[in-house]
Amino acid sequence: MLTLPSIPPLFEDVQTQARARQAQLTKPAGSLGQLEDLSIQLAAMTGQLRPSLANKAVIVMAGDHGVAAEGVSAFPSEVTPQMVLNFLHGGAAINVLARQAGARVIVVDMGVAGDIPPMPGLQIRKIARGTQNMAALPAMTRAQAEQAIAVGIEIVETEIAAGLDLVATGDMGIGNTTPSAAIVAAITGRPVAEVTGRGTGVDDAGLARKIKTIEHALQLHSPNPNDALEVLSCVGGFEIAGLAGVIIGAAARRVPVVIDGFISGAAALVAAELSPAVKPYLIAAHQSVEIGHRAILNHLGLKPLLNLNLRLGEGTGAVLAFNLIEAAVRILNEMATFAEAGVSNKE
Amino acid sequence: MLTLPSIPPLFEDVQTQARARQAQLTKPAGSLGQLEDLSIQLAAMTGQLRPSLANKAVIVMAGDHGVAAEGVSAFPSEVTPQMVLNFLHGGAAINVLARQAGARVIVVDMGVAGDIPPMPGLQIRKIARGTQNMAALPAMTRAQAEQAIAVGIEIVETEIAAGLDLVATGDMGIGNTTPSAAIVAAITGRPVAEVTGRGTGVDDAGLARKIKTIEHALQLHSPNPNDALEVLSCVGGFEIAGLAGVIIGAAARRVPVVIDGFISGAAALVAAELSPAVKPYLIAAHQSVEIGHRAILNHLGLKPLLNLNLRLGEGTGAVLAFNLIEAAVRILNEMATFAEAGVSNKE
Repeated sequence: MLTLPSIPPLFEDVQTQARARQAQLTKPAGSLGQLEDLSIQLAAMTGQLRPSLANKAVIVMAGDHGVAAEGVSAFPSEVTPQMVLNFLHGGAAINVLARQAGARVIVVDMGVAGDIPPMPGLQIRKIARGTQNMAALPAMTRAQAEQAIAVGIEIVETEIAAGLDLVATGDMGIGNTTPSAAIVAAITGRPVAEVTGRGTGVDDAGLARKIKTIEHALQLHSPNPNDALEVLSCVGGFEIAGLAGVIIGAAARRVPVVIDGFISGAAALVAAELSPAVKPYLIAAHQSVEIGHRAILNHLGLKPLLNLNLRLGEGTGAVLAFNLIEAAVRILNEMATFAEAGVSNKE
Repeated sequence: MLTLPSIPPLFEDVQTQARARQAQLTKPAGSLGQLEDLSIQLAAMTGQLRPSLANKAVIVMAGDHGVAAEGVSAFPSEVTPQMVLNFLHGGAAINVLARQAGARVIVVDMGVAGDIPPMPGLQIRKIARGTQNMAALPAMTRAQAEQAIAVGIEIVETEIAAGLDLVATGDMGIGNTTPSAAIVAAITGRPVAEVTGRGTGVDDAGLARKIKTIEHALQLHSPNPNDALEVLSCVGGFEIAGLAGVIIGAAARRVPVVIDGFISGAAALVAAELSPAVKPYLIAAHQSVEIGHRAILNHLGLKPLLNLNLRLGEGTGAVLAFNLIEAAVRILNEMATFAEAGVSNKE
């Protein structure tokens, strides 16, 4: 039986201090928009007006999906381990953006079908060699879902012990927009067709097949929408379950969690069902192209920082947002107040 | 008579190379959205797949506005020189964000009403001590408009000679959303009420007064919408004219220009009227809260990178976008190709 760590409430006093300070800085109140809100949220999460952001990381979890056999993706499953190797060699988009942001990349094999040889930087935590095909069987057992979440919690706790002030979620897994859309449909109750997009780029026929496959799987297993573990078991993925654990584990330790796009969003949805207290610790990095992402953000009450027509995953959008998070903290702490600068306030 | 430098066309061959390279990188084609487009645009502007971004600056031009006497702003005019001093002491939002971005801040007094003593970092290029009140007189003479543009060109040329790879435009001037809205209405032909917002935060009565003042000024002077110098003369501002010069001067030397919000946008509108060839050298940093900003972006055919409910000016949104511009260049250059990484491409 999975035991989830408890998540502390926000520091309301520090939140109030941050809000009061924003009103004293030499700018029209509110004129830095979302950056002001973000600085207040970060203070409330961490209990500090100037939280350290020295140690940043993106945790990229990889897994394969039995449902890929239904032809729901534009890329073959062999790309999952190939891209994991690309992450380990530093050649993927997430490596480039993490280098720029000064963040470390933590790569976890949560359930890639093929074997990836042990390598520096790779954590092999395979729950199984890919999920079962949800079109025929439950994607995983309930015990596997619990195990994957526990691994996510453990991994982020180890990273926090080593030093981690800000964490981004990232994913890799050919076919994983299919379980993500299935999770979103199950938990939010939206029709499958409204939350299912083209992923890495299926054509019209592929999209129709994808929607049909998800509808069929949800009818076949009919998971209880109020039981997120059952939803995960029926139509989830190992990397999605692992990321839900990362989110819960980070929030439990007051580490702000930057949620990437659609797959990370599905993990956040699961995390918020299991532990509703995670919500104030979430920062939505961006609005994905994937249509179901909007349903996730609405359900969680999150407003994304970026909207750049991204649909790559890997944590790329989340790491791009690190710079805005740092900007928010700096603004709150480095700007002069009206009194300090001798500037007249609003008439 | 003002002589404008000629602006070279884009390097189409390098643009083609950049587009071809994007298609070979280990990600679904197009999955990095606007970052991909941006990397291609930067290559086309500079003629280099990996343009240097080592030398970055924001040019913040300040000026006062006679029309402030009509009660169109929530802050008093004395704030203009106070904020210029704040810039010089490093306490304003633009200083904080420029430090983060590794960009220098160039502060220019284009026409502040009061005297600011000579100080390191301040360029005093006063065209006059504030514009005339457009509600009664033309804001400036045509000769002054030309002089302000020439100063902007000269300043950016001097900075380019000293080393400048990427430049942002910034403004400071109490009341300057009023001339900006007047310029936007004049050039785009939109009704004043549709392009006039609350600036630093006027109330409903202030907004109504602002709209009436602009409508009155445009009726009084009825500038020829096809003569941007006449528009500037009737309803412009010295910092706006100066920034138009900065934009033209940068484009003439193939330096990408990052346009901040509403006031910088009005300057870009003027620049594009005077020299339509500037357009491909413009990068729209963000979508401002100020309602008229949308009309500017539509008119120029620009898609903003950020939408964070900013309405501060100073170049803050533009400097925030520097990180995304750097990310675009890095992605194009540092990612592995499918062939290099041994990753299978789309089926």
